[in-house]
Amino acid sequence: MTKKQIKLGVFLMGTGHHIASWRHPDAQADASENVEFFKEVAIKAEQGKLDMLFLSDGLSFNELSHPAEQVRFEPLTLLSVLSTVTKNIGLTGTASTTYNEPFHIARKFSSLDHLSRGRAAWNIVTSYYEAEASNFNQDKHLDHSLRYDRADEFVEVVKGLWDSYEDDALARNKETGEYIKKGKLHTLNHKGEYYSVRGPLNSSRPPQGRPVLVQAGSSEAGTTLAAKQADVIFTAQQTLADAQSFYKKLKDKAVAAGRNRDDIKIMPGVSVYVAETEEKARAKYEELQQLITPEIGLDFLEDYLGIDLSGYDLDGPLPKDIPPTNGNRSRQQLIIELAERENLTIRELYLKIAGSRGHRIIFGSPSQIADQLIEWVDNDAADGFNLMPPYFPGGFTDFIDLVIPELQKRGVFRTEYEGNTLRENLGLQQVPSRYALQQV
Amino acid sequence: MTKKQIKLGVFLMGTGHHIASWRHPDAQADASENVEFFKEVAIKAEQGKLDMLFLSDGLSFNELSHPAEQVRFEPLTLLSVLSTVTKNIGLTGTASTTYNEPFHIARKFSSLDHLSRGRAAWNIVTSYYEAEASNFNQDKHLDHSLRYDRADEFVEVVKGLWDSYEDDALARNKETGEYIKKGKLHTLNHKGEYYSVRGPLNSSRPPQGRPVLVQAGSSEAGTTLAAKQADVIFTAQQTLADAQSFYKKLKDKAVAAGRNRDDIKIMPGVSVYVAETEEKARAKYEELQQLITPEIGLDFLEDYLGIDLSGYDLDGPLPKDIPPTNGNRSRQQLIIELAERENLTIRELYLKIAGSRGHRIIFGSPSQIADQLIEWVDNDAADGFNLMPPYFPGGFTDFIDLVIPELQKRGVFRTEYEGNTLRENLGLQQVPSRYALQQV
Repeated sequence: MTKKQIKLGVFLMGTGHHIASWRHPDAQADASENVEFFKEVAIKAEQGKLDMLFLSDGLSFNELSHPAEQVRFEPLTLLSVLSTVTKNIGLTGTASTTYNEPFHIARKFSSLDHLSRGRAAWNIVTSYYEAEASNFNQDKHLDHSLRYDRADEFVEVVKGLWDSYEDDALARNKETGEYIKKGKLHTLNHKGEYYSVRGPLNSSRPPQGRPVLVQAGSSEAGTTLAAKQADVIFTAQQTLADAQSFYKKLKDKAVAAGRNRDDIKIMPGVSVYVAETEEKARAKYEELQQLITPEIGLDFLEDYLGIDLSGYDLDGPLPKDIPPTNGNRSRQQLIIELAERENLTIRELYLKIAGSRGHRIIFGSPSQIADQLIEWVDNDAADGFNLMPPYFPGGFTDFIDLVIPELQKRGVFRTEYEGNTLRENLGLQQVPSRYALQQV
Repeated sequence: MTKKQIKLGVFLMGTGHHIASWRHPDAQADASENVEFFKEVAIKAEQGKLDMLFLSDGLSFNELSHPAEQVRFEPLTLLSVLSTVTKNIGLTGTASTTYNEPFHIARKFSSLDHLSRGRAAWNIVTSYYEAEASNFNQDKHLDHSLRYDRADEFVEVVKGLWDSYEDDALARNKETGEYIKKGKLHTLNHKGEYYSVRGPLNSSRPPQGRPVLVQAGSSEAGTTLAAKQADVIFTAQQTLADAQSFYKKLKDKAVAAGRNRDDIKIMPGVSVYVAETEEKARAKYEELQQLITPEIGLDFLEDYLGIDLSGYDLDGPLPKDIPPTNGNRSRQQLIIELAERENLTIRELYLKIAGSRGHRIIFGSPSQIADQLIEWVDNDAADGFNLMPPYFPGGFTDFIDLVIPELQKRGVFRTEYEGNTLRENLGLQQVPSRYALQQV
């Protein structure tokens, strides 16, 4: 029997995912705005046959957050550049439904899909910082549930706009003078609760039919949106049991929404420290941990929890009854649960999560890393992983050079790309146009 | 005395600017969504040492319009790709102030400026089709004067966001742990009539300080905005006298707005047919004119004039008292004046303007073309030109291969780029941050 294949993305972030990565001696401190750096990483990722590059995004400056997030490229412009130095790897960009218009989003991702010949993916977020609202003419960020309601309609409109042209709509017949076959062009005429969008789009049907949809919400509203709309789920479980529970919940919800279990690929984030031996891998981690000052650690924790911790003892526990944030609520909850489960002080907590921003961290030799990844995939906890390298480039190239060959040797990871589009490489079905379906 | 140097851009448009260009035997009918096509043209333009590539944009499908405008790449994604195959040429993308947010525009063009190391330019438009409104939750397009009022404030906000970081704001000091120098980071806190934008931007100061601003409005509101804000004016005069009058008006208005005459570069559009002899050049034009059917011609004219012409004799004059469009009013007026001045029938009018979409067309040998271009630049009618090749690639490569060497021979066009940024190559001053100025 063929072994279950692991899907792998790499979450690009300037100097790396460890909060102090930019201080690492090998890190390129200006990486977040250095195009040559991103090109090199993209090329390396494709040499490793990864499924996709993943770029997060935010729409504000946030002084509490990771320095590498403060100044950075806008994702669609950067991914367009990276499409030119790669041929097979997927290009996932984040864009907010709260501060964008469906027409722009449909068009930009269709444009990227054309430019890359079928490798575009949209990571759907609803944004979560009040500071983002203040950059878009609003006093207050929209309420969590309203954001998700709007997001669902937003995604429906985007999918509709991507269907504006049937696959064979462009005649471009020089002899007859017919450029577009009129019957193959469709006007959406969407009038919903939040959006009114006529269409058609001024971009022809994307090569993938529908660019891949990624979603990362773990709240009830987030998982409902994901189960209905997403092809790939990016998530943040720490333990096998939690990951299994999340995996089952999402797949069940997808089935309830009329989809197949295999239609969604669940890819938890993971930060990997790999070396010849586990001891050497752990030493790499400790080297980065030494670079976290209390100021960096506290800023980071306050940002994620949405509260001021300045009155509390660093060597005591978190305050009780932290109010739910209007930001990323599922991430807040995961962090509070971690502190309770492991009985951590504030200092221990920030030291623990600052390394991977709340995501799972694993250590070991190439063989030990492979064991830990395969364990989750073979036990219905994951379909693959979104790699969150602690620092670039070393923390990433180590994975490609040491772990990928091990996974390939064990027959759980490709040695060549299966297809030309991201959808093909992820093993996702091509989505036919709604109008083509009507004609069957 | 050094001769006045000509500035040259090339307005990229899929198959070409002639309305029937896509039917030309040599045209690549799918050019508007073919990335290899655009890369080849960009490389050729840089071989010719042109100042900039120029991409227009629209936010709707318009069945009356040029087929090559119907499905096309989103400008910022395409320009990001083109930044990778070029090193010196400017990258001008169009974006609407009416259907965008200042934060997104500031960020995307800053991102492109970083990706291209100082070659980004924003062509500021206010949009003009009702169909665009209906793609953005609105029943009706905003009134012409309101659009320009909003545009002025929009541009002010974008300029403010580009000043968020002083040139030396990013310390990235691994030893001290200081990433951003706090005193060098500024929050805009803009609260105006139409926009409320806090800032700072999450993109550091663009390499050019301020990406180049381009504007193409010729109406009173358009020229007021241009004289105050723009570095480059793209315009559409047909005759030397009209161009001189427009040139003087814009430069006078710029001076009245507190700027220097040389701070704005006026670049009329021009469609060039060049061959060994004038006769052969005119034959190329006639070959394209033969491809215009009455349907193509009428659609095109109705779109520009904003009226239905179906009841009128093709071989009679335009109807009198055509009401002002809420779209591109200055273009409508130029076309009506042309018909009156030359006493044209409807058929003659569409045949005349379909070749260049209302812009000037010139024919001749390389020497004759150089004469016609130099005449305008030497007589205060233009600082340069935005080339609108009748068809790609031939109608463009002819210009690069035949006319550029002639201009270079006459000492009116560069043989090497003067600098690394678009601002340097256009001879425009670097704009210091408003905060750096305060400290002087």
